[in-house]
Amino acid sequence: MKILLINGANLNMLGTREPEKYGSKSLREIEYNVIETGKKLDCSVDAWQSNYEGEIVEKIQSARGVYDGILINAGGYTHTSVVIRDAISAVNIPTVEIHMTNIHSREEFRHTSLLSAVCVGIVAGFGEKSYILALEGLTSYLNKGFMS
Amino acid sequence: MKILLINGANLNMLGTREPEKYGSKSLREIEYNVIETGKKLDCSVDAWQSNYEGEIVEKIQSARGVYDGILINAGGYTHTSVVIRDAISAVNIPTVEIHMTNIHSREEFRHTSLLSAVCVGIVAGFGEKSYILALEGLTSYLNKGFMS
Amino acid sequence: MKILLINGANLNMLGTREPEKYGSKSLREIEYNVIETGKKLDCSVDAWQSNYEGEIVEKIQSARGVYDGILINAGGYTHTSVVIRDAISAVNIPTVEIHMTNIHSREEFRHTSLLSAVCVGIVAGFGEKSYILALEGLTSYLNKGFMS
Amino acid sequence: MKILLINGANLNMLGTREPEKYGSKSLREIEYNVIETGKKLDCSVDAWQSNYEGEIVEKIQSARGVYDGILINAGGYTHTSVVIRDAISAVNIPTVEIHMTNIHSREEFRHTSLLSAVCVGIVAGFGEKSYILALEGLTSYLNKGFMS
Amino acid sequence: MKILLINGANLNMLGTREPEKYGSKSLREIEYNVIETGKKLDCSVDAWQSNYEGEIVEKIQSARGVYDGILINAGGYTHTSVVIRDAISAVNIPTVEIHMTNIHSREEFRHTSLLSAVCVGIVAGFGEKSYILALEGLTSYLNKGFMS
Amino acid sequence: MKILLINGANLNMLGTREPEKYGSKSLREIEYNVIETGKKLDCSVDAWQSNYEGEIVEKIQSARGVYDGILINAGGYTHTSVVIRDAISAVNIPTVEIHMTNIHSREEFRHTSLLSAVCVGIVAGFGEKSYILALEGLTSYLNKGFMS
Amino acid sequence: MKILLINGANLNMLGTREPEKYGSKSLREIEYNVIETGKKLDCSVDAWQSNYEGEIVEKIQSARGVYDGILINAGGYTHTSVVIRDAISAVNIPTVEIHMTNIHSREEFRHTSLLSAVCVGIVAGFGEKSYILALEGLTSYLNKGFMS
Amino acid sequence: MKILLINGANLNMLGTREPEKYGSKSLREIEYNVIETGKKLDCSVDAWQSNYEGEIVEKIQSARGVYDGILINAGGYTHTSVVIRDAISAVNIPTVEIHMTNIHSREEFRHTSLLSAVCVGIVAGFGEKSYILALEGLTSYLNKGFMS
Amino acid sequence: MKILLINGANLNMLGTREPEKYGSKSLREIEYNVIETGKKLDCSVDAWQSNYEGEIVEKIQSARGVYDGILINAGGYTHTSVVIRDAISAVNIPTVEIHMTNIHSREEFRHTSLLSAVCVGIVAGFGEKSYILALEGLTSYLNKGFMS
Amino acid sequence: MKILLINGANLNMLGTREPEKYGSKSLREIEYNVIETGKKLDCSVDAWQSNYEGEIVEKIQSARGVYDGILINAGGYTHTSVVIRDAISAVNIPTVEIHMTNIHSREEFRHTSLLSAVCVGIVAGFGEKSYILALEGLTSYLNKGFMS
Amino acid sequence: MKILLINGANLNMLGTREPEKYGSKSLREIEYNVIETGKKLDCSVDAWQSNYEGEIVEKIQSARGVYDGILINAGGYTHTSVVIRDAISAVNIPTVEIHMTNIHSREEFRHTSLLSAVCVGIVAGFGEKSYILALEGLTSYLNKGFMS
Amino acid sequence: MKILLINGANLNMLGTREPEKYGSKSLREIEYNVIETGKKLDCSVDAWQSNYEGEIVEKIQSARGVYDGILINAGGYTHTSVVIRDAISAVNIPTVEIHMTNIHSREEFRHTSLLSAVCVGIVAGFGEKSYILALEGLTSYLNKGFMS
Repeated sequence: MKILLINGANLNMLGTREPEKYGSKSLREIEYNVIETGKKLDCSVDAWQSNYEGEIVEKIQSARGVYDGILINAGGYTHTSVVIRDAISAVNIPTVEIHMTNIHSREEFRHTSLLSAVCVGIVAGFGEKSYILALEGLTSYLNKGFMS
Repeated sequence: MKILLINGANLNMLGTREPEKYGSKSLREIEYNVIETGKKLDCSVDAWQSNYEGEIVEKIQSARGVYDGILINAGGYTHTSVVIRDAISAVNIPTVEIHMTNIHSREEFRHTSLLSAVCVGIVAGFGEKSYILALEGLTSYLNKGFMS
Repeated sequence: MKILLINGANLNMLGTREPEKYGSKSLREIEYNVIETGKKLDCSVDAWQSNYEGEIVEKIQSARGVYDGILINAGGYTHTSVVIRDAISAVNIPTVEIHMTNIHSREEFRHTSLLSAVCVGIVAGFGEKSYILALEGLTSYLNKGFMS
Repeated sequence: MKILLINGANLNMLGTREPEKYGSKSLREIEYNVIETGKKLDCSVDAWQSNYEGEIVEKIQSARGVYDGILINAGGYTHTSVVIRDAISAVNIPTVEIHMTNIHSREEFRHTSLLSAVCVGIVAGFGEKSYILALEGLTSYLNKGFMS
Repeated sequence: MKILLINGANLNMLGTREPEKYGSKSLREIEYNVIETGKKLDCSVDAWQSNYEGEIVEKIQSARGVYDGILINAGGYTHTSVVIRDAISAVNIPTVEIHMTNIHSREEFRHTSLLSAVCVGIVAGFGEKSYILALEGLTSYLNKGFMS
Repeated sequence: MKILLINGANLNMLGTREPEKYGSKSLREIEYNVIETGKKLDCSVDAWQSNYEGEIVEKIQSARGVYDGILINAGGYTHTSVVIRDAISAVNIPTVEIHMTNIHSREEFRHTSLLSAVCVGIVAGFGEKSYILALEGLTSYLNKGFMS
Repeated sequence: MKILLINGANLNMLGTREPEKYGSKSLREIEYNVIETGKKLDCSVDAWQSNYEGEIVEKIQSARGVYDGILINAGGYTHTSVVIRDAISAVNIPTVEIHMTNIHSREEFRHTSLLSAVCVGIVAGFGEKSYILALEGLTSYLNKGFMS
Repeated sequence: MKILLINGANLNMLGTREPEKYGSKSLREIEYNVIETGKKLDCSVDAWQSNYEGEIVEKIQSARGVYDGILINAGGYTHTSVVIRDAISAVNIPTVEIHMTNIHSREEFRHTSLLSAVCVGIVAGFGEKSYILALEGLTSYLNKGFMS
Repeated sequence: MKILLINGANLNMLGTREPEKYGSKSLREIEYNVIETGKKLDCSVDAWQSNYEGEIVEKIQSARGVYDGILINAGGYTHTSVVIRDAISAVNIPTVEIHMTNIHSREEFRHTSLLSAVCVGIVAGFGEKSYILALEGLTSYLNKGFMS
Repeated sequence: MKILLINGANLNMLGTREPEKYGSKSLREIEYNVIETGKKLDCSVDAWQSNYEGEIVEKIQSARGVYDGILINAGGYTHTSVVIRDAISAVNIPTVEIHMTNIHSREEFRHTSLLSAVCVGIVAGFGEKSYILALEGLTSYLNKGFMS
Repeated sequence: MKILLINGANLNMLGTREPEKYGSKSLREIEYNVIETGKKLDCSVDAWQSNYEGEIVEKIQSARGVYDGILINAGGYTHTSVVIRDAISAVNIPTVEIHMTNIHSREEFRHTSLLSAVCVGIVAGFGEKSYILALEGLTSYLNKGFMS
Repeated sequence: MKILLINGANLNMLGTREPEKYGSKSLREIEYNVIETGKKLDCSVDAWQSNYEGEIVEKIQSARGVYDGILINAGGYTHTSVVIRDAISAVNIPTVEIHMTNIHSREEFRHTSLLSAVCVGIVAGFGEKSYILALEGLTSYLNKGFMS
């Protein structure tokens, strides 16, 4: 089972950006943990990051036939990107949306996600742990082929 | 570590109500799985259900000094209840919000949750697995005392 | 053919509350008329009232396998209760929504009904006669199995 | 007692237009049933249809002094016509609004009726039965002179 | 100087419809007074009424090259008709909007006029006198060729 | 019969401010014409101008028992002043609202008037002639004691 | 003179919940003070609390013929309960709405009260003193029979 | 293959109304060009115009069984007519919406079309050429039986 | 303890303006009662009224170092004045907002107060008694230095 | 005559993405058809695609002095991109907007186009044929230099 | 070159009001700095302050023919005054809007300025330095006669 | 002191795009002037431009530890980019927002800036001079370390 982990805009800043909100681990460390957890669940995880909306679109497009599932934390693009939504819709690969913080207790414009409706599940608010829980949820879904 | 699992309105119907959407397991079976998972994580889970908004408020109030964390799937009250929100706020116990389905791909009035802003995390869309992931996220949080 | 007639919040006040708007008959008298009319239409009607949202939810849940149709005047809950809507949806029993007054010529917040979309029909504005018309409409529907 | 039954735009298509939604009876048959039911209730019903907003306005104007009550299914004009509303208001004849379908479970722009506030009652969602229930409600009202 | 006076939907009911609001004079009498006042101002007034939106559009179209100015009380069409607005715009004849009542102290949906922006002036709230003042304002405008 | 003519903010600039929009007559000349027209209608007009919201409020208050009617062009205060509205309401003297231009074809925030609902009539769009028509409408109203 | 004091959801938590916002007195102490103040004003106060919407409705219903006035702090139900509003309306007993905090400087969804329109007065923002002021205001009203 | 070309309100004014916006060709000339183009595409076009909303509804109704496709430029009715939308929906004939101008760069109320959702395609902004392109698009669709 | 009582626009009309809504007492009498009540509470009250927004701003500014608290009924300025809000904020003197009527059961534009968020408390709906209650609330607050 | 055809985000997926909605032809085949049609119309078409918003902006900028017209299907960027709109505006080259589907019968957020107001024409809903019609419309426009 | 510097409501409080937000300099000192800077730029600055909306209007009116440019910090009137906007518009003197704080990171109602659209430039957020920058910008504009 | 000047989408078109709005200077010339002015203020300015949202994000990220302040004119991204806002927030470098035109007098969708709330100051409307004023304001801020 192959999983693609996508991190979007500004997440390469993790560990240095507002550590009291996002923790002090770097993106590299978080990605490492997801990959290690993947091994225990018999799945291989590829981690990738970009600050470009268009590049994320193409990464998702290229996932077809290669990956069984996608984990995505799109950062600020969560709230504004119709094209990432369309790409997820087009490749038809089960996708889980991740947020480290609880977006509902932040600014008004962060309360709406354009991606939620085309994802199979959402995990938000558990810091780096959100990534691990999302991976477990996604593999559970892929093993069964449906939610139950 | 003691955890209170609260299920709200109509969740006692699980297994019989629209099984293609909510799966065929009864609430009893789901609660049993959460309790068993809890044992592996060294925590004891008490499961409880009610269809009354006021009774849920009092259950949350009574949790203070007794439970370390709360898991709640408030059902339809998620979208209308200011008083459950106030109760969570008042007892100041870390709480995680759970949904079996992805509420963002259902009717318009289910897209807004009054509870999200006072919870520490949210898990949605993984069917009964949502309960297990939420328990893991909550115990992770309680062990560290903060999100990271 | 068995029918359950549910009256919600404040309808136990009928006859004494604003008689120029709701008429001077008590709820007991109205229920009696519905039951008598039911006899002529070869169906037995059970009448029941509650001011509790949660209790109404459970009454609807318990109707499955017992009643063929439901008549409901939910009173003020009409405009705020997602959980009653969910309960009607869950039991899958043909239900007709009743209002004595024309809710569209009253306050703004009474113009929206959360229940209408899950009911098979609506009767509003004929005072106590609304109950009789709703019963006739419902039995007509049940005899044919569909609207025509 | 004389009643005028008005059907508005596109209702002359009944029986041929989307029969799974509106049934397979023609407008002629429905009108016939209303007229026959009227006889049993000691009232004479005149049935009339038009696709012109202005013509409906003039029909309502001409009803004064001739009819005791009006039944109206204005079709799509329900949601856009201030002038039909004004005409009903001007002639001051008790009027009942009819819809075959439950307009609250259709497109957004069909949820609002400009006519409801100037009618004495509303019946919606019972298919052709809506016409019969509306007639019964209207004659009951006319016999008593008020809602009870 | 030739003036066309157009009265729209339901204004043929004047004198009989809610006389406490619109006065007891018939439309015929009001038109007569406008015509007589016109004579004193050296202009000939043709009065015309219709309940049909389309017929009003064609009347306005046919005014080009025949009339120097238009007086219009469109009744309920004031609030809903884009096509009457387009017709006024197309013929490019100076037009004054008239209302007998103060539409701003009536229902919400009567507060907006689609016609005001394409008219040269508005007179509202003076009962039948509104017609006389509008005629004076229009002839003043036509004599000068501009507002000053 | 005594009439008070009130001009509000910036109207003392008439004649010099954007003459292509407001004409080249000064406020003094316009007031003179209203006073002369008043004499022909057997009424005496007092003309007064202020740029202060509070001063206009007090002028209206002081009109009670002194004037039979008020003509007001409040200028920019038309769209923002609740206190001028309250003053008109408090003194209970018939008031007519005046605008030289057609406010409906200008900026969005000028489309709403807070004063219209408490005035008996409105005249807009006829340049300085608006003042004369408003005076005629007001005296017609005062002679009859009502609109007709 | 007999007064009923109703406290709604979560107010039994007073003294322990966020004392910097609500003070450190328990509900019992606050009720005691209201009762004592009542004695000085020659009226007897009964204090009662519930977290159930339905139970509050029935308490209000049962007040008819027993109490002369009602004081109510409905807590979170203030913003969502149509049925409590209906109950107040139905019993027709002068009622005063109480809030300890200034609800207008809190979250958006607390700015609207469904109860205000059916109460005779409102007191908000004085902490426990709000209860005393409300009692004084209510007895003043009851002694005179009207506001002055 | 038979096509019906419908032109709505004010389009009979073409050539004389604002030629800088709509060109100087008359409706007759434009219709002639569509008919000639139709001949080359092996289809016969009937051209028809009306300013009446009701008449357009009936024309569409009568098209069933007679025409294979409809081209419609409804003029101002585009933005206000639910009944024309219903008629298109009822007859179930592939329909293409036409506008000569780009409605999105005009007044706000022209940005919304009630017809678009029930048409198979839209062509806007090419002046009289819009009619020719729409005809080509429609015949292409009819030849294949679907869009591709 | 020194208190400043400010009354805003149109309140000098009290006693003569709509007495059924505001009572028949003059502002002078109401001010006298507040002053007398002040004496009993060991505080001296200075009463002052103005119809000018700017003058009220300067009065509040001048209160610094002179008064311990402010009582303000700003009349219609309540809903439109940012500058009065800024002045209250700038002088940092505890202020209580007063309304004689229940503004929530009046026109829409009176439901919002720009002042509430910078005041320590609000009293509304008790007629002249509102002033007395506000004074008591304010002195209670000043004696303790905080709300409880 | 030289034309630039721009396809935006996700359109490189054509033929594989939801073929029942977008047809089974690849973007390559569609581009080929546009180029061939161009030859017949005496114009040369360059086809180009990108998933990057910024790259599309620069492509449009570079078109100045090189191309006579632009055809653009911006995909999901249609609804969110101010910068593509600005680029079209800046180069001042006649541009036509293309959509394969009828965007008005899809999700709410696809109903608004930020590009329409700066394009000379729009073609939507004819599948791949939309491209051909848009090309014909654009060349017609370019030959005449204006819409007629 | 002569410049008028206008400061509006509450700005006379500078230095004493919330110094952490507005700095500790008095208005007198700030005005002095602007005047001194003006000398270096060969222009004479007159500084003036008022808390009255009407007085500001008249000051602007009187500037015509006397001043070449205006600098204005209208304080709270920025967000509510149509009449100050009209006055700026009427005198047609280039005007620059000033704010010491960044109004966009304060309360919602301060985000909109009614004055911006009639000013030639805006400077906000630099504390007292805002005044100096605005003066430089304005003199640069006046020397060239246009923005570049 | 080192300053980074960022220009966003379409600003590389300066001098050629709508010169009557943006002046005839190229971006190169404007950048040169900012750099020269920087020298006089003892600071070194690096100028950089991009049309890619993602590239701007990365430029801002890379500024940490290198630059003391940022000047940004994000062009059209001002109104749509959450990710640029997040990047500014993340690097925590004082930033000033620049616009050459007064965005408040342009299209509606340009009135809102997502960036303003995270910037220390804003300068808009002075053409190229905006850049110079912004630089002066920023260096003044950096020298003092705070606004005054």
